[in-house]
Amino acid sequence: MSGFVSFVGAGPGDPDLLTIKAAARLDTADAILFDDLASRTILDRARRDVKLVPVGKRAGRPSPSQAEVNRLLVEHAQAGLHVVRLKSGDAGIFGRLEEEIDALRKAGIAFEIVPGVSAASAAAAAIGIPLTRREQARRVQFVTGHGVNGQLPDDLNMAALADPRATTVVYMARRTFPALVERLLESGMAPETPAILAENVGHQDQRITKSNITGLARVLAEGGPSAPAIVLYGPLAEEA
Amino acid sequence: MSGFVSFVGAGPGDPDLLTIKAAARLDTADAILFDDLASRTILDRARRDVKLVPVGKRAGRPSPSQAEVNRLLVEHAQAGLHVVRLKSGDAGIFGRLEEEIDALRKAGIAFEIVPGVSAASAAAAAIGIPLTRREQARRVQFVTGHGVNGQLPDDLNMAALADPRATTVVYMARRTFPALVERLLESGMAPETPAILAENVGHQDQRITKSNITGLARVLAEGGPSAPAIVLYGPLAEEA
Repeated sequence: MSGFVSFVGAGPGDPDLLTIKAAARLDTADAILFDDLASRTILDRARRDVKLVPVGKRAGRPSPSQAEVNRLLVEHAQAGLHVVRLKSGDAGIFGRLEEEIDALRKAGIAFEIVPGVSAASAAAAAIGIPLTRREQARRVQFVTGHGVNGQLPDDLNMAALADPRATTVVYMARRTFPALVERLLESGMAPETPAILAENVGHQDQRITKSNITGLARVLAEGGPSAPAIVLYGPLAEEA
Repeated sequence: MSGFVSFVGAGPGDPDLLTIKAAARLDTADAILFDDLASRTILDRARRDVKLVPVGKRAGRPSPSQAEVNRLLVEHAQAGLHVVRLKSGDAGIFGRLEEEIDALRKAGIAFEIVPGVSAASAAAAAIGIPLTRREQARRVQFVTGHGVNGQLPDDLNMAALADPRATTVVYMARRTFPALVERLLESGMAPETPAILAENVGHQDQRITKSNITGLARVLAEGGPSAPAIVLYGPLAEEA
C-alpha cells in the first residue's frame, strides 16, 4: 500500500491566495509536512485528525536536515497516507523541491506538483506594480541571496543581474543584499536604481519600503527585524 | 460615484488554479473584461447578470487596441461598477498591466492587483520539475518572444539568456523561438541544451514536448497548431 505526495505551493501566506486546488489538497490530506513560513490560518483548513509534521527552522529547536525531511516524506507516504508537502509561495521556486522529488523517485512514490502564487508576484501585486513592462523591462528574473552555505553565491551572472532593463527579485535578500549591491555597482549599475524591500508579504504585518539599491543596502546592513524579506529592483520599482 | 477595478490573475486556465481571492472577485463583479485566453469555465463562475466584455483577439473580429481596452476599463468603472480585469496567468507578467494602470491613475480610479499562478509555474508543475535547483539553476527568468512589433526584440541581453546555469521560460514562444535559438547558439549556448515546449498548459488539451533548443527550434519553424505555447530551457528541463 503506497501513498501519494502532493507538493503544494501555498502562496505568500494570505489564505485567500491559496488556489482552489491547494485548498482542496489541504482539506483532505492525511498528513501535512510544513515549514516555518506556513501560516497558522492555512493549516487550520486541514482535517481535525490530520497529522501535522513541522519541518521548519523556528520551532525553538534545530531544524531537521534536508535528508531528514526527505525521510519523513517517504516514511509517511509509505504508510499509505496522502501527504501534503506545503511550500511557501510557488512550490518550484527556491523550495529545494528537487531534492524531495529525487527521494520520492528513489522510493517509487507517486507525486504531483500544485503550483502556487510566487512571493515575487505577490510582492509586486502588494506594491501595485507589474513585474514586466513593454520596452522598459521585458525580462524578469528571480534569484536567491543565499548560496548553499548561506553566503551570497560567488558565481553570479552579473551581466544578467546588473541589467537596467530587467526586473530582478531577490529572495532571501536580508543578509546578503549589501554584498550583492557592491557587486552590482562594480558591474556598472546605477546607485540610484529604484528598489523596494517587501517584508512579510501576504501577512498582516506586511511592510513595503521604497528606496534605491544603495539605500536598501544601507538599511539591510544595519540589521533590523528578521522577517522574511525580498527585494525587487529595476525601472518598475520607481512606479510604486 | 466611482467604481473600482480588480486586476485578477486567473492562472493558466484550469479553474482549480484560481486563487480563492480571484474566485471571490469573479463571483461578485459587476463587469468582467476578459481576453481570448480566459477559459469559459472560469467565466461561468460569474453572476448571471454580470456584464461580460470580451477584449481579446479571437472573437472573429479585429481585437480592440490597447487604447480601446483602457477606455472600456475607465468607462465601466466610472459608471460605478466593480470591474474585474481578468488576465491569464499572473496579472503582472507580460499582461500590459502598466498601460491599464496608467489609464486608471489618470482617471482617478482606485484599483487592486490580485496575483495569480504564472504560466511558467503552472508549466513547470505540469512537467513535474521545479524552476530552480541549488547549484544547477539558481536563477530563473521569464522573457517574451514578442517585441512591440511581434518580432523577436533585438535588444536582448544574450549573456543572461544564454546562461547554462539558469532556467529560462519564453512566453509567446511559438513564432520567434527559432530566431532566439540562432542567437543563443551564436552566444555559445550548447545546441543540446534541454528544452520543453508546453502548449495549452492548464487546459484539457495540454501538450508537453521534450527536446532540446535546436530540436524545438526545428519543430516550431515547421509551424503547427497555433495554441498558446511557452518554452522552458536550461538544465532542469532534462529532469522532466
